[in-house]
Amino acid sequence: LVSSARSEGITAFTADALGENHEVLRLFADLGLRTARRFEGPQVRCTIHLDQDDAYLAAVEARGRAAGVASLLPLLRPSAVAVVGAGRTPGSVGRAVLNHLRTGGFTGRLFAVNPRVESVLGVPSHPSVAALPMTPDLVVVAVPAAGVPAVAEECGKAGVRALVVVTAGLDRMQARALLTACRTHGMRLVGPNCLGVSNTDPELNLDATFAAGHPRPGTAGIAVQSGGVGIALLDGLSRLGIGVSSFASLGDKFDVSGNDMLQWWESDGRTDLALLHLESFGNPRAFSRTARRVTRRIPVLTVDAGRTDAGRKAAASHTAAAATRTMTRQALFTQAGITATRSVGELLETAALLHSQPLPEGPRVAVVTNAGGAGVLAADACAEAGLVLPPFTPAVIDDLLAVLPDGATVGNPVDTTAVVSEEQLAECVDRLARCSGVDAVVVALVPTAVAAATGDDLVRALTTAPGRRARPVLAVRLEQDRSVELMPAADGGTIPSYAEPQAAARALAHAARRAAWLAQPAGTVPALTGVESERAREVVEEYLAFHLEGGWLDPRTCAELLACYDVPQLPWAWAECEDDAVLAADRLRGFDGRVVMKAHWPGLLHKT
Amino acid sequence: LVSSARSEGITAFTADALGENHEVLRLFADLGLRTARRFEGPQVRCTIHLDQDDAYLAAVEARGRAAGVASLLPLLRPSAVAVVGAGRTPGSVGRAVLNHLRTGGFTGRLFAVNPRVESVLGVPSHPSVAALPMTPDLVVVAVPAAGVPAVAEECGKAGVRALVVVTAGLDRMQARALLTACRTHGMRLVGPNCLGVSNTDPELNLDATFAAGHPRPGTAGIAVQSGGVGIALLDGLSRLGIGVSSFASLGDKFDVSGNDMLQWWESDGRTDLALLHLESFGNPRAFSRTARRVTRRIPVLTVDAGRTDAGRKAAASHTAAAATRTMTRQALFTQAGITATRSVGELLETAALLHSQPLPEGPRVAVVTNAGGAGVLAADACAEAGLVLPPFTPAVIDDLLAVLPDGATVGNPVDTTAVVSEEQLAECVDRLARCSGVDAVVVALVPTAVAAATGDDLVRALTTAPGRRARPVLAVRLEQDRSVELMPAADGGTIPSYAEPQAAARALAHAARRAAWLAQPAGTVPALTGVESERAREVVEEYLAFHLEGGWLDPRTCAELLACYDVPQLPWAWAECEDDAVLAADRLRGFDGRVVMKAHWPGLLHKT
Repeated sequence: LVSSARSEGITAFTADALGENHEVLRLFADLGLRTARRFEGPQVRCTIHLDQDDAYLAAVEARGRAAGVASLLPLLRPSAVAVVGAGRTPGSVGRAVLNHLRTGGFTGRLFAVNPRVESVLGVPSHPSVAALPMTPDLVVVAVPAAGVPAVAEECGKAGVRALVVVTAGLDRMQARALLTACRTHGMRLVGPNCLGVSNTDPELNLDATFAAGHPRPGTAGIAVQSGGVGIALLDGLSRLGIGVSSFASLGDKFDVSGNDMLQWWESDGRTDLALLHLESFGNPRAFSRTARRVTRRIPVLTVDAGRTDAGRKAAASHTAAAATRTMTRQALFTQAGITATRSVGELLETAALLHSQPLPEGPRVAVVTNAGGAGVLAADACAEAGLVLPPFTPAVIDDLLAVLPDGATVGNPVDTTAVVSEEQLAECVDRLARCSGVDAVVVALVPTAVAAATGDDLVRALTTAPGRRARPVLAVRLEQDRSVELMPAADGGTIPSYAEPQAAARALAHAARRAAWLAQPAGTVPALTGVESERAREVVEEYLAFHLEGGWLDPRTCAELLACYDVPQLPWAWAECEDDAVLAADRLRGFDGRVVMKAHWPGLLHKT
Repeated sequence: LVSSARSEGITAFTADALGENHEVLRLFADLGLRTARRFEGPQVRCTIHLDQDDAYLAAVEARGRAAGVASLLPLLRPSAVAVVGAGRTPGSVGRAVLNHLRTGGFTGRLFAVNPRVESVLGVPSHPSVAALPMTPDLVVVAVPAAGVPAVAEECGKAGVRALVVVTAGLDRMQARALLTACRTHGMRLVGPNCLGVSNTDPELNLDATFAAGHPRPGTAGIAVQSGGVGIALLDGLSRLGIGVSSFASLGDKFDVSGNDMLQWWESDGRTDLALLHLESFGNPRAFSRTARRVTRRIPVLTVDAGRTDAGRKAAASHTAAAATRTMTRQALFTQAGITATRSVGELLETAALLHSQPLPEGPRVAVVTNAGGAGVLAADACAEAGLVLPPFTPAVIDDLLAVLPDGATVGNPVDTTAVVSEEQLAECVDRLARCSGVDAVVVALVPTAVAAATGDDLVRALTTAPGRRARPVLAVRLEQDRSVELMPAADGGTIPSYAEPQAAARALAHAARRAAWLAQPAGTVPALTGVESERAREVVEEYLAFHLEGGWLDPRTCAELLACYDVPQLPWAWAECEDDAVLAADRLRGFDGRVVMKAHWPGLLHKT
């Protein structure tokens, strides 16, 4: 419709929708076009502008972004928070959140709303939101599903500007009423069915979740749909020492989405790593635009959940939203430069590398080990992750042999033997890290009684490097307890250490892909003309009518399809016999007299 | 040659070889035939018997096995051990091994051999092996490579019965001299280029390695080519609480091999889990025969090292032996029922499951979670590992809903919600573990403040089960530090707990494959007659001469090739025109008058 209208010179659509008809309102928003809304009683009048180019879109987006980030302030930087539904029974979710806010040391005002008590956990309780001594910016709602719409409406009327609804199991009517209340009163909404939000900024110490512990303040932003995954990420990043800047468990994502959080981290001045766990994408276009921009500044990592039928079925039942299809999701990640991992562990392993080390310029890895077998495992792991173990030049080999003990083998992997000293290992790694044929160094170490007896500490050889190295260095310690650790280095930085060579190799491959992606120009979205989607659809449907399971188009149909999208094609002709072919060749040949002939036999693809 | 000779009625070959020509002697041994050897000066006369059937081979093998195990006694149950090459310099490998034997509490007699000192680390030292007050069963050799042959010869003459040579870097001549000494004097040899051996039997406490720590006594047998991987496995199994029965680092495997160790564990009465890490197979046939037998009794796990070109190159340089090709190795593992993992971590994760839980009868998994997102990750992981999440019957669903809190979703995964109590979770898991449509239960738990506040411990719900369950139960705790732990259960057993759903799913898939393998009949190796390998080779080579890159044989050549191996074929004929086809059909048709016609067009494979 938009295409037809544009080609007819129409510049705007006007639509009237019921304010509670959020499916239609969402559809309008998903168009990715500038849309003005005006509330007229229960109606919303939407004006959708069609006269937009790339630059205009960018400008609109920048304005929207600033507004979007500003609208998150009451959610992520509230000066007063109230918890509705915090009772006296241990094990209630509301009580858990209130306790968490209290023990987390929230620096603003904190209230409970509960008509039956005067205080909960030492926090003063009031009978209603309206009865609070001041209007909180943020209200955490933890009442049973049936009570949620009324609480939301009450909050809206009182001037509350953001809600976190942890309650799960809202039915269709309750969900609609909640959304209407938020839209009518202009409140941002996190949830429902979520774990809560945190902002570790020490000026704030906001921890409005019911996770088991408090996150360590730091530089990673986390947004998850699943609270469970959120807890795992909070724990993992705290343990690694990277820590968390802000956290949002988005649950059913009625309003605040991964997109909002990406924009927040882009401008909060505290986040240098973004971690997402999303099971569905409400607005893939907007998400892709934001992510493309943010990934140029900071790494954005995600767990690609719902890869299998079983996983998608589980996700659909979990977040009550049709999970986005695998192909679509993966295309989205690739296009936006998002680092997509297959598990929470892989996410943390990759985050540890991206947090601590420079990006490798390419996929060439030097492997160093004090135990040959560990070198074999590391070589396998690197090759399987798509990395390359280049051979060393004779000069490099001589250089390394000069510093290593007798018996050392300088292939790639370098086998230093078990008798290598701390100093020799440090020299070896430093030389490799300076070697122009190498993009990264993986050092696989095994503890032996030999090193123990001399007091040599091979791990220390990595962490006492003279100044931060220009190329990434990763340690693998097969006997390590945790799958990944960040070891403090003498220069104030850290070195990632992995229990499995696979984990190190996978993380490094992600880093190399990120480097390759950053090296590409950003690109723009061209305005395409001459696109005949409808005709293309007809061509495809006509074919599928006779080929129910799909197949290969014949060259003529293929050419027709390409023409629908104005894809340039060389002049060609179809010939069914020798004479036709000669005539066609005569007609088509270029100034050098040459033509290309392609044979075609239905169903036969490879012709040699 | 053997085939031709057999078909001519020849029953034995006789061959004379130089005793030091171990390549030829190994070739004879690798035939898998009964071979008698008699030393005649520097010559060895070998008689290779050709008249053997399956039963005969089994009998021979059983005898050899008993002899083989007996020959390992001085190595793995020595009553006196000497270390040659233990000096006073900290950091020498010999000193490290001696110290390890001492601190490990070896119950037998312990000596050092070093002419320059009277004692090392409080252990009496003697100038030579011959000068020791008693002849040790086992000598650990840690002198420089050049000195190894003389020490080996001295040991042989003194009546020593087993050597562990930790020294690396022997050249060809030194290696040959070492082997000759061992063969001439009938000594078993571990190494060279190895970490040593351990036997944790408390009557013995033999720890003759230079690993960093002592292994915890237990039930896993470990044999590795790489000392580094050995250290990782010793550490990992000790940490898991499975512990180690005996350990051998085989290094360059001049004599004692994985095969020997499998036979030892088969009969030592202490081992219920065998872990191998092999980069090469000297005698794949013998190994396969032994492994097929041992895997029926205890699980045999291995790390499949050298899967990639990079890994194989590294392995070749590490153990100085051409690594066995991937295809060959994997076929060997599959045929022998060996559980082949891709990393040390996966090996330990799988060992933890096989050690602690019954085998699943099939691939059907029920997933239970208190956090929907963790359920999605677990569902993905199970599906990717080849497991199945079956839907539950209405009866099971009702049954589960009756015990779970409001809001719980009983699909597969079962989402109990965060407010599930310890008791409810235990009930749910028990019901699923008794459900006939389920082969295993994976429980993905996330710690929340809700459970913490009520004092409910969801993990305890798994470990306090009423008696050992008949089906395996696995926990996944995304926030867990270690990749796998064995949690003590109330019944004295343990429950494996994984940090990653992938790890749990992979381990479970390995267990399901082992169960399927055990369910197959053992099978025998038939005596094949009418095999014309030479003709088959000709057919293949003729084809390859014209098709350098291989391809599909035409039906006539294919039939010819099958005939070389006496593979039964239905009567068939080749027809090039309609009349030929009618005549052939007339000739070939069965009593019901039916024939099958197959079209053929060169290069066209799929004809529909």
